[in-house]
Amino acid sequence: MKVVIVGGVAGGATAAARLRRLDEKIEIIIIERGEHVSFANCGLPYHIGNIIKERDQLLLETPETFKNKLNIDVRTKNEVIEINKIDKKIKVQNLNNKNIYFENYDYLILSPGAKPIKPRIEGIQSEGVFVLRNVEDMDNIKEYIKNREKILVVGGGFIGIEMAENLLHIGKSVEIVEMADQLMTPVDYEIASIIHNHCNDKGLKLNLSNAVTKIEKENNFLKVLFSNGESKNFDVIIMSTGVIPEKELALNCGLELGNTGIKVNEYMQTSCENIYAVGDAVEINNLISGQKNLIPLAGPANKQARIAANNIYYGNKEKYKGALGTSIAKIFDMTIASTGLNEKRLKAMKIDYISSITTSKSHAGYYPGASLITLKILFNRDGKIFGAQAVGEDGVDKRIDVISTAIKAGLKVWDLEELELTYAPPFGSAKDPVNYAGFVANNIIKGDIEVIDWDKIKEIENHIILDVRNKDEINDNNIIKEGSFINIPLSELRKNLNMLEKDKTYITYCTMGLRGYIAYRILKLNGYKVYNLNGGFRVYSNAKKSKKMHK
Amino acid sequence: MKVVIVGGVAGGATAAARLRRLDEKIEIIIIERGEHVSFANCGLPYHIGNIIKERDQLLLETPETFKNKLNIDVRTKNEVIEINKIDKKIKVQNLNNKNIYFENYDYLILSPGAKPIKPRIEGIQSEGVFVLRNVEDMDNIKEYIKNREKILVVGGGFIGIEMAENLLHIGKSVEIVEMADQLMTPVDYEIASIIHNHCNDKGLKLNLSNAVTKIEKENNFLKVLFSNGESKNFDVIIMSTGVIPEKELALNCGLELGNTGIKVNEYMQTSCENIYAVGDAVEINNLISGQKNLIPLAGPANKQARIAANNIYYGNKEKYKGALGTSIAKIFDMTIASTGLNEKRLKAMKIDYISSITTSKSHAGYYPGASLITLKILFNRDGKIFGAQAVGEDGVDKRIDVISTAIKAGLKVWDLEELELTYAPPFGSAKDPVNYAGFVANNIIKGDIEVIDWDKIKEIENHIILDVRNKDEINDNNIIKEGSFINIPLSELRKNLNMLEKDKTYITYCTMGLRGYIAYRILKLNGYKVYNLNGGFRVYSNAKKSKKMHK
Repeated sequence: MKVVIVGGVAGGATAAARLRRLDEKIEIIIIERGEHVSFANCGLPYHIGNIIKERDQLLLETPETFKNKLNIDVRTKNEVIEINKIDKKIKVQNLNNKNIYFENYDYLILSPGAKPIKPRIEGIQSEGVFVLRNVEDMDNIKEYIKNREKILVVGGGFIGIEMAENLLHIGKSVEIVEMADQLMTPVDYEIASIIHNHCNDKGLKLNLSNAVTKIEKENNFLKVLFSNGESKNFDVIIMSTGVIPEKELALNCGLELGNTGIKVNEYMQTSCENIYAVGDAVEINNLISGQKNLIPLAGPANKQARIAANNIYYGNKEKYKGALGTSIAKIFDMTIASTGLNEKRLKAMKIDYISSITTSKSHAGYYPGASLITLKILFNRDGKIFGAQAVGEDGVDKRIDVISTAIKAGLKVWDLEELELTYAPPFGSAKDPVNYAGFVANNIIKGDIEVIDWDKIKEIENHIILDVRNKDEINDNNIIKEGSFINIPLSELRKNLNMLEKDKTYITYCTMGLRGYIAYRILKLNGYKVYNLNGGFRVYSNAKKSKKMHK
Repeated sequence: MKVVIVGGVAGGATAAARLRRLDEKIEIIIIERGEHVSFANCGLPYHIGNIIKERDQLLLETPETFKNKLNIDVRTKNEVIEINKIDKKIKVQNLNNKNIYFENYDYLILSPGAKPIKPRIEGIQSEGVFVLRNVEDMDNIKEYIKNREKILVVGGGFIGIEMAENLLHIGKSVEIVEMADQLMTPVDYEIASIIHNHCNDKGLKLNLSNAVTKIEKENNFLKVLFSNGESKNFDVIIMSTGVIPEKELALNCGLELGNTGIKVNEYMQTSCENIYAVGDAVEINNLISGQKNLIPLAGPANKQARIAANNIYYGNKEKYKGALGTSIAKIFDMTIASTGLNEKRLKAMKIDYISSITTSKSHAGYYPGASLITLKILFNRDGKIFGAQAVGEDGVDKRIDVISTAIKAGLKVWDLEELELTYAPPFGSAKDPVNYAGFVANNIIKGDIEVIDWDKIKEIENHIILDVRNKDEINDNNIIKEGSFINIPLSELRKNLNMLEKDKTYITYCTMGLRGYIAYRILKLNGYKVYNLNGGFRVYSNAKKSKKMHK
């Protein structure tokens, strides 16, 4: 058997290694257009930022190590330019000497990946405008920015943010411009807003709800025109506005495409039975929405590759069920992560959902180093969990991993209450943030609490804001000013109930939400109309501050 | 309605708070024998170690805060000495003035906890011998050790280890004596051995497979006689040899007991319908073995308390299904954690199981700060996961939490392959250690690999050890010396296959296990008899070193 693999990064390299471990005799060839095989593409920004000091650390394997360890023939700087499905033959060009040659195959695995989008902006081809896809791009950027100072990163997704953080780390002046009103579109606004404010504290300029319309090369700098009419000068521009799948090869040989990428069945097989496809170019099933889309992430690519290899070797037995799109980014001292669908997406799909935001400590508050985690979960009255988002300084990855596992396993939102997570003071709490999120979600479903979102306060008629924090926690600058306001510390609430009016609707809050909830219950059980602020003042204040700063 | 709660720490305090949030009008009384209510018992060792600097941080609530925030009547230094089930009345003694009084109830919640075992050892009542259960114990220990130096901790479980670490942290000379041949009995020997060696590196003396038989007070020190015939002098002894449930009150009033603790049904209700019981004194269902036993941990106690409160208020609707016994400890720079059943327990229960040990990086190896996680999972051919154990410097809590969630959800071991966990270089790898554990487990089930445990090498007849690490990784002191040995680096293995003999059985290994596995596949597919070393040299060398040091 002879298997040819097109593309030698994440998916391609994994499929090749798996096949070899299954069979010593299969002839395996990897054809990779770039100079490197199996490099650490997620590490590229960190070498630019000098966090990863040695360039060699990113080159995980070479054609030599593939040959020696796995007896795989890796041909870098070779490009597959045509697939002949009928004759099971590919046309390849050696990019070093331009020679053309042919290679036949029994099975083909397409792992071409996705390339950074270069939007059609006038001047985008100017010197000093870069994308970051591979080691060569990284080398070029690293060299070019050496004596340059002002850098514009276009796009505020995961890569853009990581890029910006790294550039700031080596002392550059960095601005991110993003068309949306927020960074990190996989999370909702109020979660992203905590990051916006953190970026601001760290000196990273955010230019939200704005876009580049034109780039002009002038002397030594790039003059950038924005859609809001402003213009600014930069030395370097790095485009990170997303990726598009490399589907041309598949298209040209007549493989079926979906709406977004190469179409595959659940065995990772294309419309041609001996051609499999994996990774960023492939359209896969979103596990929650059931919709087919692109989920260009390394984790899913690796898993698809392993499954494709198994199916080629054993016959189609293993199914790839789809992905949740779990993702994460470190941003200075904070972490932001999400899994599943967000509120924007659920709204667009017209799915009924409930949102609950809880803020709790990363570990026992009395043990040093505890920090706040804000966790948003989306679910419905049947307990189905649609997704989760979290932001904080520590332990965010753990909580999203647990919820991702819960979603994958089909657990209900109330099952989160009973998860038995590791607890000792340095690691968590007897009631972990995930348990706590489950408690609150279940309270909402059972009607034990009704929450109001940070941006919906004005919609409540005849409302009074009831701040239940202690006097020494509040001042004129850290309270909610949207209508009548009263401060009664929780410990004094019962004896002051007579100050409250039954024909008003109270909105209770504290910093994190727990005291607000207890106050809610006191009022509710005493016959008052009341809501608790979803996520407490932490969420409210971050969202409002961000709105004000980026309007 | 009037609810009286016996015991005001974790379970009792949680049940009280939950009840109040459900109803403003219930009369709720907590009767607590000790001086403090709702204190952070898991934090006590850390205040002794001066990690938690302020004693007040451990006192989470006081009778006053309970009164003010929750309108709950907390009576510390009051002890319930008798329960009259028929008349629904308890007899209480005020420990301050010795006065006796009675209190009736509609519902009673027992949350008496468990007390440290004081083994019947001659001299155990001597001055200088302590247990650590509550704030008073902590204060006494903290005061007593001030000008004392040499401390013996008796018992190498979680509390003993945390105690020892903290005492070392404030400059004491510390030794742990433990009857078993290992610390941390929830994990198996080879996992514990990594901690043994770490303790040794940190200057914590371990005295394993030994026990205290007698304590003699001599002048200013305590002379300790051990079961191995030795004797040593210490200034202080801290007993942490486990806990026994406080079941006397339940027993005396005729409530049914199980083999180990107070018997409750799945609603947390005792044999008397208006008496519920929660926490360390209660016998609960082990979710995997199905056996009833004590799982004295804060997480389960809190969840049981919430359920008991809900069931009292709403009628019996919520079931407590049981616990996995997920637990964790920080030990100097390392973390050790486990969930479910271990190998020793499975053997004792005569359950067929498979063990797989994998070692992988806590996050992408090319990003700074990656460290090794050794993860052991226990499962069977049907994919059922019995338990998991892990040890490492970072990210151990996350992986055990994910597997705990997977077990709770009934996922199979092969489902671990497809979990979609957060990946960016600072947090994980595209193939997370949990995915990787799933891959290897599934390989074992499918027969793609056969592993041999570190202590079973000698059982393989006619074997040859095949070290596939590179020449520069090995020296005479870091190889396996149990029979014939040959070193062929993986990259040279294929061309040297002719050096191997078909009538021998090869045992392949490398440091972490991956290269050993690839070598296994090469040999297997070429017709050789072969095993791969379970967990690689890291596990083998730690276990052997520990055995040698503590024999």
